[in-house]
Amino acid sequence: MTFKADIDRIMKDIDRVTGGSVVTNRPSYSESDTATRKYLLSSFEELGLSVSVDGAGNIRAAMAGREPELAPVLTGSHIDTVKNGGRFDGLVGSVCALECLRVFRENGYIPRRTVEIIFFAEEEATNFGITLLGSKLLTGKLTPEDLKDIFNDEGESADIVIRRAGYDPDRFGHGVMKQGDVYAMIEMHIEQGPVLDKLGLPLGVVERIAGMETYRVVLSGVCGHAGTMPMPDRHDPMIGAAEIILGIKHAAETSEYGTAVATVGKIAARPGAANIIAREVEFYVDIRDAYDESVERLSGVLNSLIEKTAGKYCLTAEVVRIAKSPAVALAPEVVALIHSAALDLGIDSIYINSGAVHDTAMMAGITQTGMIFIPSIGGASHCPEEETRASDILNGTNVLIETVMRLAES
Amino acid sequence: MTFKADIDRIMKDIDRVTGGSVVTNRPSYSESDTATRKYLLSSFEELGLSVSVDGAGNIRAAMAGREPELAPVLTGSHIDTVKNGGRFDGLVGSVCALECLRVFRENGYIPRRTVEIIFFAEEEATNFGITLLGSKLLTGKLTPEDLKDIFNDEGESADIVIRRAGYDPDRFGHGVMKQGDVYAMIEMHIEQGPVLDKLGLPLGVVERIAGMETYRVVLSGVCGHAGTMPMPDRHDPMIGAAEIILGIKHAAETSEYGTAVATVGKIAARPGAANIIAREVEFYVDIRDAYDESVERLSGVLNSLIEKTAGKYCLTAEVVRIAKSPAVALAPEVVALIHSAALDLGIDSIYINSGAVHDTAMMAGITQTGMIFIPSIGGASHCPEEETRASDILNGTNVLIETVMRLAES
Repeated sequence: MTFKADIDRIMKDIDRVTGGSVVTNRPSYSESDTATRKYLLSSFEELGLSVSVDGAGNIRAAMAGREPELAPVLTGSHIDTVKNGGRFDGLVGSVCALECLRVFRENGYIPRRTVEIIFFAEEEATNFGITLLGSKLLTGKLTPEDLKDIFNDEGESADIVIRRAGYDPDRFGHGVMKQGDVYAMIEMHIEQGPVLDKLGLPLGVVERIAGMETYRVVLSGVCGHAGTMPMPDRHDPMIGAAEIILGIKHAAETSEYGTAVATVGKIAARPGAANIIAREVEFYVDIRDAYDESVERLSGVLNSLIEKTAGKYCLTAEVVRIAKSPAVALAPEVVALIHSAALDLGIDSIYINSGAVHDTAMMAGITQTGMIFIPSIGGASHCPEEETRASDILNGTNVLIETVMRLAES
Repeated sequence: MTFKADIDRIMKDIDRVTGGSVVTNRPSYSESDTATRKYLLSSFEELGLSVSVDGAGNIRAAMAGREPELAPVLTGSHIDTVKNGGRFDGLVGSVCALECLRVFRENGYIPRRTVEIIFFAEEEATNFGITLLGSKLLTGKLTPEDLKDIFNDEGESADIVIRRAGYDPDRFGHGVMKQGDVYAMIEMHIEQGPVLDKLGLPLGVVERIAGMETYRVVLSGVCGHAGTMPMPDRHDPMIGAAEIILGIKHAAETSEYGTAVATVGKIAARPGAANIIAREVEFYVDIRDAYDESVERLSGVLNSLIEKTAGKYCLTAEVVRIAKSPAVALAPEVVALIHSAALDLGIDSIYINSGAVHDTAMMAGITQTGMIFIPSIGGASHCPEEETRASDILNGTNVLIETVMRLAES
């Protein structure tokens, strides 16, 4: 038996949550988050699911299986967004998990294993600059105690913000998810890159989630008047920054796997005037690859580049690694299962790596996991231009439903 | 007869105006400007000078000469500062002009020509992003009407801000300074560069003031997720900006006169997050040289670089010239006079060009002008590290006094 998703219902869910706007702002613990949760919880109620919300605001909604004592199959994604983000990142995997259980219900199907929707809170680091906060707390990668040392831009601790939103982080004290608690976790997500779109393929079966290191670099030189300081006398951190930006780009491009990426997306010169040679330039370098050894090698290149460039222009350099997450291999059995489900449904797919981190990377520490990617047109993501065709959402959801069923029956 | 300055009086003036702080914030039309003016006006009163303040807040204080019908000799500088500037920029030439007339008075010397102190308002562009506002209005380079179209960051017009400070720009309607009104103008100023300090010389006789062009460049590409967009698929404006920054640096370094400079001191990436490939990068390029043809050539190189780089990465580029001032040759007779005054006082000097623009560049359009530079330790300027030795201030002031006397007697 094969169940089919209803794309109109899915698109209505997306429109309802985003209000039809292409620009979305739905950070966790905000008013727009509360409104979204209200809508989603009412949908769970319609389906008669048992809902629980944990101490970080992660939502779980269970459809009891025929053998409820078995470990459940989880599916879902995150429901928060970056600032001025798009419509599909996170939300599409969330509402399609909901559609999965709707389809089960309307077909009178009761899975062998309990199937649970899971919606993660604060995946995007929008509040505190820490990605995957909800899934890190859930899987014990962060503790409730850590929340007191994590702050938003207003200087409020995560502990305070989360409590104010109505959640009690202390509840994690007894309730962190452990190995064996979950049978499998499947997340559907937009690719957020251009690979599927360029290849004209509707589906990616994720094999690995890239590892990442992020560095904050501050180069300090000698401030001076733009008109009066001869070129040879300058110690201009802007020049150093430009050389490092181009150097790490070249290193990523020539990296051995061909999948490495390096990005400088944030930069500031201080004092920051057209007619003043900067005293310091601060920039962030984000390095990723599907293999940890590649990330480590590139991080080494970055650090050498910084040292060499600082020496060349007599600058001082402060380099702080502000984030690191290891590369994750998803479960080969689940990867194969998704691939064969797609094959059986006549949907073309390729194996793909995820350059972005996902909550599933945290879940991979405690259960077998898989991810389904659907195409992002032009690869745009984290911006209002984010776009995914309804037909691709439908195909992805059908593969998701089929995969969840096969896992739930196994 | 040779008159000597009193360095203690000068340093007391500097301390009094700066409150002894190395960080100074004294934009025109501010409270700190008002307090400074009160002190300076009381000093003029002690000397019995005739004071007038024009419609932009430029102050003139005249010591009547023996032949008051002759065109006067002017000396002075600006009394405003950049944000978080240093102690000496502008102020040193202002208080040393005051010291010059004090020395005349205490020695009972009445010059043949009237000698006037002139303190310019709003040289530093701190309020409206327009340099030399006071001297531009005084010399007719800007009209009172223009002030209605010049705005500060709060969106207030220069006309409103200047009127609120108590000045009436309409007064320039009849009173713009014309050719023949002034016999000569001498400005003493810190070098704001490292040349004198490196050579260990106490004095620079300025021959030329550099011409300048400033460009605002906005490169736009395609925003994307830092982890998911493969390197070959990127249209990253940060990479374009880095190449242009290094390209224009190289062009300035290899420019034919060896005196050209190019600076990028302000940059922003948008949306500006470590994990997002920027959609656009905005930066400012400041190009200067003592010869207009060199500035024009470098501006041409910049524009070619931008075009080439934008093409290479499929970026769009918006390039706006936001400022332009021509190079100015100071009067050869006055330059020679300053040089011989220094020689007669036994003070070593060299001929030097000014990379910074000064009010004297505006005055050069209506009278013969000269500038005396004294060393900036390490070349630092427009920052709290700005430092000039008292002994150099004393030497400079003595040359200023001697030069003003010789001009006033001629």
